[in-house]
Amino acid sequence: MINTSTIFDYVRPDLLKMEDLIRQQMKESYVDLTNALELLLSSGGKRVRPTITILVGKCLKADYHRIITMAGSIELLHTATLVHDDLIDGSLLRRGSPTLNSKWSAGATVLTGDYLFATAARLSSETASIEALKLFSQTLQTIVNGEVRQMFSPRCLPGREEYYKRIYAKTASLFETSAAVAGIISEAGKETVQALSTFGREIGMAFQIADDILDFTGDESVMGKPKGSDLRQGLITLPTQIFIEDNPHHPVVEKITTSGCISESEDIKGFIQEIIDRNTIEKSYSIADEFIERGINALEILPNTIEKQMLISLVQSQARRNF
Amino acid sequence: MINTSTIFDYVRPDLLKMEDLIRQQMKESYVDLTNALELLLSSGGKRVRPTITILVGKCLKADYHRIITMAGSIELLHTATLVHDDLIDGSLLRRGSPTLNSKWSAGATVLTGDYLFATAARLSSETASIEALKLFSQTLQTIVNGEVRQMFSPRCLPGREEYYKRIYAKTASLFETSAAVAGIISEAGKETVQALSTFGREIGMAFQIADDILDFTGDESVMGKPKGSDLRQGLITLPTQIFIEDNPHHPVVEKITTSGCISESEDIKGFIQEIIDRNTIEKSYSIADEFIERGINALEILPNTIEKQMLISLVQSQARRNF
Repeated sequence: MINTSTIFDYVRPDLLKMEDLIRQQMKESYVDLTNALELLLSSGGKRVRPTITILVGKCLKADYHRIITMAGSIELLHTATLVHDDLIDGSLLRRGSPTLNSKWSAGATVLTGDYLFATAARLSSETASIEALKLFSQTLQTIVNGEVRQMFSPRCLPGREEYYKRIYAKTASLFETSAAVAGIISEAGKETVQALSTFGREIGMAFQIADDILDFTGDESVMGKPKGSDLRQGLITLPTQIFIEDNPHHPVVEKITTSGCISESEDIKGFIQEIIDRNTIEKSYSIADEFIERGINALEILPNTIEKQMLISLVQSQARRNF
Repeated sequence: MINTSTIFDYVRPDLLKMEDLIRQQMKESYVDLTNALELLLSSGGKRVRPTITILVGKCLKADYHRIITMAGSIELLHTATLVHDDLIDGSLLRRGSPTLNSKWSAGATVLTGDYLFATAARLSSETASIEALKLFSQTLQTIVNGEVRQMFSPRCLPGREEYYKRIYAKTASLFETSAAVAGIISEAGKETVQALSTFGREIGMAFQIADDILDFTGDESVMGKPKGSDLRQGLITLPTQIFIEDNPHHPVVEKITTSGCISESEDIKGFIQEIIDRNTIEKSYSIADEFIERGINALEILPNTIEKQMLISLVQSQARRNF
């Protein structure tokens, strides 16, 4: 098992090159756009998605410049969707930093997201792989379609299939693409690309499940929102879904399954605590572990390189920590 | 000179095929997205941009399916930018129909635009031309960058170069791409693609100048906005720019060139009438005509087909009517 910090040390020079490339792409843009991008880059998260692209690409000995270009495109696509999401949700903070929409007008925020999409597409086109570009645009369609669906769906829509469909669109689809495009630009065979898609998709599902668990177990002061904020907004995630399945005759569950969502007046705090107390968290983690296992199994097809070991270690060690 | 209605009759079957293709691309999407798209398609304008792509593509004997696919991508990219623009401007009507944002939430409108971008990119990737895709993503960068620049620029920024730069980003860049991509997918030589870029760019400039003239001369009840609404919003278009150049010592001009824009309290209606009365409209049309002429001259390189004649006739006959 390779230490996580060893892995991030290993890809750091690649991620820095990727950031340089992104900056180059934006250098002809208007100064306010450049500044907005700089802000987004510097408040960056762990860069899990481009790290996957880089490790898979190196494992398969892809052309280095194409790997970095593709990783940059993935990160920009991800950032673009975050910028529009934060605007739509009216979120003021992300990763502890003020969001763009908390400082800019809605119009400027919409345009910044659009510019990031355009730049992602441009970078992607520079890898000169039509297959990768197709996957890219399909992924954006999937993400946006999922968001629209969620926006227009009734609140508190239960069902495990419903939940899986939602987190696939929201998160797993881009993980899937992050791994698959690395296979494509490495000119790996169809079977390998397929296996990489499976790897990405399964760990993406696990990633989102861990995130959804954190909504119940995280420190309120760190998260900046109350426990169970998803449910408060009418979103049924895995712990709630498991509670519903395990306690079909619970009065609140009966209400959700027959007439819709929990109203403001009800003891939602008490219900959230009940969900946490009834072993749903551990069960959710077990399900996430199954996704992780299926993801790692799919990597069997890759040559046994240091990067493959890093991918496995990264996923295993981070499974319960939302990476 | 070919009659305009003959030209639109000629491309109508192609435009219908293009719309079918667009519908097919969206058929897996969530029902509300599909409905929104249907609304956008049915309230469609004259489809000048895809008509250019189709005529150039046919003139150069490009593969028919690729022409239609590329035309659809162009139209979707255009529609996506309109959807976001109307949201940003808070416009409630476009072409006499209610805009999406007048009926939907801002969030749903942002996402619809994103979905259109994604679908444009997907269609574009299906033409399997990396060059076309590069051009596409660059064009989107140009358009968005121009909008951000305009958003953050001081109001009433004079200067002819400033004006040309703005209308290139806003309008001419997509016309340029509409013509150039048709050359690219026809596998025409570099020189031909270059000439097509010139054609598209120059007529795109003329198209926007005609639109800006209309803001001064159009019927207020048809436009649904008062005469000179650009200037009222602090935007200097060609007629105002010519007035500024011709009358540097006019008190309002002196104010604009030294200390900024016209304030609400001033007689803006009177100033607008003065601009119209001082021959700026005719001078603006002459400049538009020069752009048109340069555009048509660039077509010399094309084989002398019926489609080439149609392109020339279309541009000439529509020059003074914003096509």
